[in-house]
Amino acid sequence: MQEFGIGLLGFGTVGAGVADGLIRNGDLIAERTGLRPVLRGIADLDIATDRGVAVPRELLTTDAQSVIDDDAVDIIVELVGGTGIAKTFTEAALRRGKPVVTANKALLAKHGAELTALAREHGAEIYFEASVGGGIPVIRALREGLVSNRIDWIYGILNGTCNYVLTRMEKEHLSFEEVLADAQRLGFAEADPALDVDGHDTAHKAVLLASLAYGFNVPLDDVPVSGIRGLATEDITHARELGYAIKLLAVIRRAGEHVEVSVHPALLPQEHILAQVGGVFNAVMAHGDMTEETLYYGKGAGREPTASAVLADICDVTKNLQSGSPRQFVGPGHSNAALSLADASEISTRHYIRLSLLDRPNVLAEISATLGTQDISIASVVQKETESNDHVSVVLVTHHATNRQCQAALAAIAAMDAVRDEPVHIRIEDV
Amino acid sequence: MQEFGIGLLGFGTVGAGVADGLIRNGDLIAERTGLRPVLRGIADLDIATDRGVAVPRELLTTDAQSVIDDDAVDIIVELVGGTGIAKTFTEAALRRGKPVVTANKALLAKHGAELTALAREHGAEIYFEASVGGGIPVIRALREGLVSNRIDWIYGILNGTCNYVLTRMEKEHLSFEEVLADAQRLGFAEADPALDVDGHDTAHKAVLLASLAYGFNVPLDDVPVSGIRGLATEDITHARELGYAIKLLAVIRRAGEHVEVSVHPALLPQEHILAQVGGVFNAVMAHGDMTEETLYYGKGAGREPTASAVLADICDVTKNLQSGSPRQFVGPGHSNAALSLADASEISTRHYIRLSLLDRPNVLAEISATLGTQDISIASVVQKETESNDHVSVVLVTHHATNRQCQAALAAIAAMDAVRDEPVHIRIEDV
Repeated sequence: MQEFGIGLLGFGTVGAGVADGLIRNGDLIAERTGLRPVLRGIADLDIATDRGVAVPRELLTTDAQSVIDDDAVDIIVELVGGTGIAKTFTEAALRRGKPVVTANKALLAKHGAELTALAREHGAEIYFEASVGGGIPVIRALREGLVSNRIDWIYGILNGTCNYVLTRMEKEHLSFEEVLADAQRLGFAEADPALDVDGHDTAHKAVLLASLAYGFNVPLDDVPVSGIRGLATEDITHARELGYAIKLLAVIRRAGEHVEVSVHPALLPQEHILAQVGGVFNAVMAHGDMTEETLYYGKGAGREPTASAVLADICDVTKNLQSGSPRQFVGPGHSNAALSLADASEISTRHYIRLSLLDRPNVLAEISATLGTQDISIASVVQKETESNDHVSVVLVTHHATNRQCQAALAAIAAMDAVRDEPVHIRIEDV
Repeated sequence: MQEFGIGLLGFGTVGAGVADGLIRNGDLIAERTGLRPVLRGIADLDIATDRGVAVPRELLTTDAQSVIDDDAVDIIVELVGGTGIAKTFTEAALRRGKPVVTANKALLAKHGAELTALAREHGAEIYFEASVGGGIPVIRALREGLVSNRIDWIYGILNGTCNYVLTRMEKEHLSFEEVLADAQRLGFAEADPALDVDGHDTAHKAVLLASLAYGFNVPLDDVPVSGIRGLATEDITHARELGYAIKLLAVIRRAGEHVEVSVHPALLPQEHILAQVGGVFNAVMAHGDMTEETLYYGKGAGREPTASAVLADICDVTKNLQSGSPRQFVGPGHSNAALSLADASEISTRHYIRLSLLDRPNVLAEISATLGTQDISIASVVQKETESNDHVSVVLVTHHATNRQCQAALAAIAAMDAVRDEPVHIRIEDV
């Protein structure tokens, strides 16, 4: 059986999972694909720590370049992470014409177009199933399964930490800070949770999905991102009473020649299947012009699920290498010059607004009038239990209005004497 | 750009959808894949009816063999359906070494191993994404996305008609007959609904999924199948009160060297995401040893979703033909001699049982004792509102017991004087 040499760069959690998968399920892979991927080198700065995987000692090295240069290594698996040395290694591998399999969403979101161009120049290719949705084969679903579809929109729950925090805030009526601290203790959140809870990890993945679906180079820095830090439990509770769940969503949606790409907490109708995605699970819902809604759901992170995605890519590469055709269907950075990022301020949705108001006559009439100056009409109002002697909490649901209209109205409302605290504003996504 | 000739056999609903997709999204496909599939022939017995698709008149013929034989046709798309002439056409195409793309689950469930062997013999291949789950790319998720995973189990909601009927029975408290009649009027059910509601369509798909996941030739005739005909609305209501939804499930589950493959209505915990799959939607949940649960959801039938899956396969074939490597990863009938179908009577689950009992002392004690003779213990009992002067409806939930134990106990119970009507018995699946 034809063998293909695998060079692993990075022997941390996922790297050890990949090595373990190759050892444990290597015969199964060979039986299914007719080809055998074989570990030929593993590079990490730390080769002393026992990773609990029985790899031959002589495969380990601290010299990544030697693995990249090894003629017995056909495929480079980059699991170093980050956009520094990982980029250098990836470029070095591509320049040698070696296909690269990566789980590095940050690298691809920032430098995908450049790296894809380099790969093409040298007859190589980048595979990145593991970079979005962990063990869920969503990249190949979009790339191959929906290849004949114009993609109308994609909604994604792409960060397990955020979804875990939101699920527990809703079910246990705990504060963001309480759940986060517990999640850190349990290992579901990083010591520095910013990349996750502030939405950046989701944004990286959104950029990859949007690039794949629409074939243009989505500029990460122009994607509006807001995370779940500071989200109040009472808004989750109010949303629930109104029939909604709050999820951190990646929204990717085409309108004419523009594509909205954004990351924000949003109210989703409770009966919608995306609202049912709980805990650390991820899900991507993609709407094609032929398929209509399709959904892909599973564990979005973790050693084994992510390693499964890396191994799926490795198998694809071995098949492509065998047939001498390393090319995949379209990837990120593929040029579709006609499309560009939509202006986020012109996106129109319904809005959830919570205000803390002085409990005096006519305040609601003033609020309504101020919204009216921006052509925003109110669909429903609920006055919640009194917060204090003189203030009441009021929850408004508006009809459709753009972000620009909503922000302008809220700025005016925030400046009113009768309004205490910054107004809370969350978009409602009518999927 | 390299062109590949497509020969379409069958120009009904899906065939017209495929032709329409090729015309409408042909440029998109070419842009994404770098290859162009081109319609070169369409065969149907009826070439007079206007299908609403602008195909050149000269492509139409009533002679399928001429399309198969046409040297300009590289790929045969079989959408004739059934296991008669469709088999003859498929064999003829494979014998000429032409890859066949098909949506024909009945043909593959019955003759998959034989056709796969024929394909291999002639250097051809069969592609069947469209045969399970319509527009959901679930076949390639299993075949490629989970290629490195041992599959522990698969649960599938695979028939949109059944799921539509069950959803409306639950939501609107209507009888099976009422909803079925309405579904037929609305076009969601066939005039002869047996293939759908009696579970055979689901069984065909279950056989394909099981063959793919476990690599052995699953004998369709040995798969226990029960459908939703005769399911009482009151059992759906009782199940709901107990925290369950009733779904028609394909269950595929490995235990040692045996694989359970069965189709039956089952109680699923309401909060489980599979229980949330409503209306005509399909979903497949597959548990891999590395990924854990993954779920694939979407429209399981209809012209456009099915055509999308056919087109995805066509694109795969063009890529494989270009690289001279028509082989896919494992397909049905792939021999794994070590595995065989499990004995359905030895499958152990919890059970939902409804009895109509004479309202007299000690009856419940007798029932409990009879269940006890088969080592079945009762987890909960609910006595429902009185049905008549002298009978009460009693719902039991048992602890784990095999089907054999349960059937034996129910036979004894049915013979008791105090029991009116045939006992109702539905499995509970603790996914």
